[in-house]
Order: sequence, then structure tokens, then C-alpha cells
Amino acid sequence: MKLSQIGEFGLIDRIRRRAATGRGVRIGIGDDAAWVIHRRGSSLITADLLIEDIHFRLQWTSLSDLGHKSLAVNLSDIAAMGGTPAYVVLSLGLPARFERRQVDEYYRGLHRLAATSNVALIGGDTNISDRLIISACVIGHPVGQPIRRTGARVGDDLYVTGTLGDSSLGLEFLRHRKKSAERVALAFVLKRHHRPTPRLRAAALLAKHNIPSAMIDVSDGLLQDLGHICAASGVGAQVGNDKLPLSAAYRALAGPAQTSFALSGGEDYELLFSAPARHRPAIAKLQRAAQVKITCIGSIVARRHGITVLDSRGRPITLRHRGHDHFKK
Amino acid sequence: MKLSQIGEFGLIDRIRRRAATGRGVRIGIGDDAAWVIHRRGSSLITADLLIEDIHFRLQWTSLSDLGHKSLAVNLSDIAAMGGTPAYVVLSLGLPARFERRQVDEYYRGLHRLAATSNVALIGGDTNISDRLIISACVIGHPVGQPIRRTGARVGDDLYVTGTLGDSSLGLEFLRHRKKSAERVALAFVLKRHHRPTPRLRAAALLAKHNIPSAMIDVSDGLLQDLGHICAASGVGAQVGNDKLPLSAAYRALAGPAQTSFALSGGEDYELLFSAPARHRPAIAKLQRAAQVKITCIGSIVARRHGITVLDSRGRPITLRHRGHDHFKK
Repeated sequence: MKLSQIGEFGLIDRIRRRAATGRGVRIGIGDDAAWVIHRRGSSLITADLLIEDIHFRLQWTSLSDLGHKSLAVNLSDIAAMGGTPAYVVLSLGLPARFERRQVDEYYRGLHRLAATSNVALIGGDTNISDRLIISACVIGHPVGQPIRRTGARVGDDLYVTGTLGDSSLGLEFLRHRKKSAERVALAFVLKRHHRPTPRLRAAALLAKHNIPSAMIDVSDGLLQDLGHICAASGVGAQVGNDKLPLSAAYRALAGPAQTSFALSGGEDYELLFSAPARHRPAIAKLQRAAQVKITCIGSIVARRHGITVLDSRGRPITLRHRGHDHFKK
Repeated sequence: MKLSQIGEFGLIDRIRRRAATGRGVRIGIGDDAAWVIHRRGSSLITADLLIEDIHFRLQWTSLSDLGHKSLAVNLSDIAAMGGTPAYVVLSLGLPARFERRQVDEYYRGLHRLAATSNVALIGGDTNISDRLIISACVIGHPVGQPIRRTGARVGDDLYVTGTLGDSSLGLEFLRHRKKSAERVALAFVLKRHHRPTPRLRAAALLAKHNIPSAMIDVSDGLLQDLGHICAASGVGAQVGNDKLPLSAAYRALAGPAQTSFALSGGEDYELLFSAPARHRPAIAKLQRAAQVKITCIGSIVARRHGITVLDSRGRPITLRHRGHDHFKK
């Protein structure tokens, strides 16, 4: 059944029936606004807009994956502030040609991640559109003091969770319709692209123990996002090219020497943070509970040195492309 | 200067410099998420998505008006819950051909209304797009107990603020490029269409005195939005056709007998509410402080009677088009 047959209010009813009621939600979907009771003294708020054919292509993304990813990218922003998410407000522009089951598939992907992340869908807007538009706003709470981009200090270690470059390597295969005999590896990087894991547990533990001096999530590429920390903190950074955490799949598909995806690829949704050296034991210990590897990839240096990537002998590597600007293409 | 020359981060810097910091805002634009301190025990949250050529046309809307309207429609939703707004999160999809001054003009319109409404822009997202996409999420606080759509009771009076039908009458003139010798009247209805006034003051006073049993804002047309109250409350309603508040401009342009714009036009952004008869004196008194006329247009009846519009002799009028469904066109 097409959306044009169900109608706007039929669709809203459908969405409402499936929306789980979260803790603190007094009024969810179905009135002029949602009403939530505060359980903490402050909130973290973030938003992301995803547009078909700019941020995703329906020909190579399932709607369930898109449901997952459109929530995940916002959860990652809450994680990057040292927070836990609570609510999502979702505005959709839906093509009238869409079938009801396609909308259901989208919500299935979203609700699955929402359930495991303890997030409640509390409202939004649905509209007709010629292409799919997804605009999500997520509200959460800081675990301790929110972690900004501004606190990195010279001498701090620089860490990243998980592995880098898988997502953009996966996108490279999608974009150029490349094949590979490394099927398991390819499936892994594609999953990393389609269903990124927001590092909520790591973020909560890091924030609880007040470890990071600055933190950001890697969405536009390691070097670009490191640039944001450095600009905000007034520092520079050195990154060891051979210290970059690469997955086995990445090594199999791109080779360990090809670090450009890890350095500049984007859409990793890993946490990048700086921390004083005294926290090294705590970080090493924390990995198990966080269920993710945390790798030291370099250090914070004085601003005048800028951001450099060093080879195994400590010599700077010259880089061409440093990251993603959505306007300058 | 075109956006493609300024780049994403240049634009974000520009937006950030102009964003006023509101009360309770600890971190605004420029980090992974905004951080706000709660000054009340609960929040109201609403969102709206506006898409070029579906919700507005740039050929007949100035960007300053669009800045105003994209915020106003969300403030109206907060008002309809009996709340006051505090924060706006704004995600924009911007055409690369846009000039910087066009973006500035949009924000000028938005900031002017934000300033008079005591609302702070705290974050969002900016993206390239082929058409203009505006997705706003507004967070506010209930003044008293939030006012739902569910509380209307048989015997309650039915009220509406301001005048109805001006906006859709203005749109009619825009759509069909109609002219009129009634220039002042035409300017009035066009302003009502382009720069709707969210009834924040009336909402706050009504909520403070706990007057409405149910409330909604008229965005899809009086009868459609009345239908939402009736469905949610399990009641019916009678509306007096000659009781509808029509502006002098409306009477001059459409004639007082032509009530279809007032009944089904949409985009009025007036408050529609039910209230027990005992509140009549309080409502009459409250109009001055609310700076808007409040008109009794009918009453709540039993569900089995449905929604009827009565002529001056109390006979039901047959209606063709009852309101707007964004999917069924």
C-alpha cells in the first residue's frame, strides 16, 4: 500500500503505535508537542539532517540500515559530549511512491537501535517529499561534566576507539561497484558503513571517570575532526601513521600501507579524545567494560607545529586530502 | 559570495557568531551537541520540516519571512501545549547556488522572532541540498499543566484566538496571481500568510489560569484541527458559521459569506481551545493582556453528532473540503 493511500494521519497512527514510551515521557507522539519530565539537571541536544542522494543512496542502502544509521549518527554526537541519549524527535520527508512496508522497514531499523540504546521516539513531523529526507534531533544527558572540544593540552595523549577507515573503504567499494574475493572482509566494511556503532558505553565510562580533556566523534575523517579539537583547544597534534587502528578487513582489502581511508575517510563514528598521561592505566583497564579497543595514536603538541602525521621513523608524511567539507566538493 | 566558496565551517562560524546565548545555555553552536541547564522540571519538544516547493515557494516568499515562519510554526505548537519556548535547534539543507546574503537574510528573520520570543538558537546542522530544506526542533516548558487535545467535555465552549482564513486567502492570491484594488487588505492577508504570529502570550495566560480543557493550534484548517481535538477527546462539536472571526481584510477580499477559507484554509496558527462555561468571564478579561481577540465559535457536543457547522438559523451547512492532509492531495 502506497503512502498516498494511507494518508498522513494513518501514517502518524502507525508510527505512534510502535513508538516505545521511555522513562520520563508523559506525552509522546500525537499531540502538538512531546512532554518529558527531567530526571537530570541538564540536557545535551544534537541534530542531523540526511538527504537522499547527498548523504545516502537508496540503491545501495537498505531502509532498515538507514533507520539504524540516522539514529546512530546522532547518538554518536551525544557520546562525543560524554552523554547518554534519552529521546529522539524525527522529521521525515517521504516520497509518495514509498510503500508502507518501506516506511515500516525504516522504523524497524531505527527502533532496534533505539531499544538497545534506551532511547524513546517522542515526536516529529511527516511530510511528502520528492526524495527521502531524514532530520533527527536527539536529546540526552551528560554523565559527568560534558566533554568539549576545547580542553586538549600540550602533552596529552591522543586516543581513538575501535578501528578507522572501514566505513569509507566500504563506501569506496559501493561507489565504484568494486568486487573482492575477500568476501568476509567486504561484508565487514560494508556493515561498518551501513550500521555504525555509536560508542555510548565507552563515552559513558570515559565521562564517568572524567578522563578525556577533549573529545569529538570522527564523522568527517580523523584529520578533519582532529583539526576541530586542535582549533578549539589552541593546540597542534602528532599522529603516528603506523599507530592507526586498522581492522583485519581493512588490511585485507586496502593493505596496511594504505592509510588514507583511516586518516581522511569519514563516517567512522569512533570517539577521538585527548587525555593526560596519568590516565593511561585507567584507559587500558576501561576497554573491556567499554567493549571496544581504545588505541593511543599520538599526542597533543604546541599549536605552532600544526597537525602532522609521522611515519615509523618519525618523519612527517605529506597528505593530499584531509577530510570532508559538505559545501566545498 | 556563494556558499560553495564560504564552505561548511565558514558558514557554521557565521551562524555561531550571531546566535544569541539564552538563559541556561552552557554550550551553544560549535560542539558535538548543545548543553542546557534545566530551569524547570520538564520540557515540551516539537519539530517541523519545511521543504521548498512543497511548503513554500521562494518566488513569492522572502527569506526573511521564511526565517520568521519556520520558527513561528514551531512556537505555535509549544503555545498549543500551554508552554513557553526556550531553545531552537535548526537543520538546514541549503542550495550551493545560494549567496551568503540570502542565508543572512533567513537568519535575520529567524533571529528577530527568536529575540522577541526569548528563544535561543543552540545548534543544528547545515548541509548542501538541491532545494531549501528547513528542519526545526523547538524545546520549551509548560507554564502550568500541559494542555492536551484529550480534555474537551460535552458542554464546553469552543474558542479561537485572532481571526481565521487570512493566511489561506493570502495564499490563494499568491497561487493564482490574483490582484485586488483592496491593497491594504491584500497586504494584510499576505503578511498573515508570510509572518504568522504564534500566540505565546495568550497560551501562557490561558495555561497559567488553567482555563482550556483541550487546545491545539490551527495549522491544517479549523475543521481538521477541531477534528483532532474531537477524536482525541471522544466528543463532537458545533461551530456557528456566523461566529467565525473574520478580519476586515478578509471581509473586503472574500466577502463575509465566503467562510471556506476560515473553515478549512489552514496555516492560521491561531489557538483553538475548549473551556467550561465557568471560565467565560476570565477569558473575556484575559484578551487585553493576551493582546489578541478570543472568540467563542461554538460548543462541544456528544460524539454521535460529529462536527457540524451551523448557519445563522441553526441549520447544518454541507461542506466539501474539510482540511489538509499532506499525503492525500
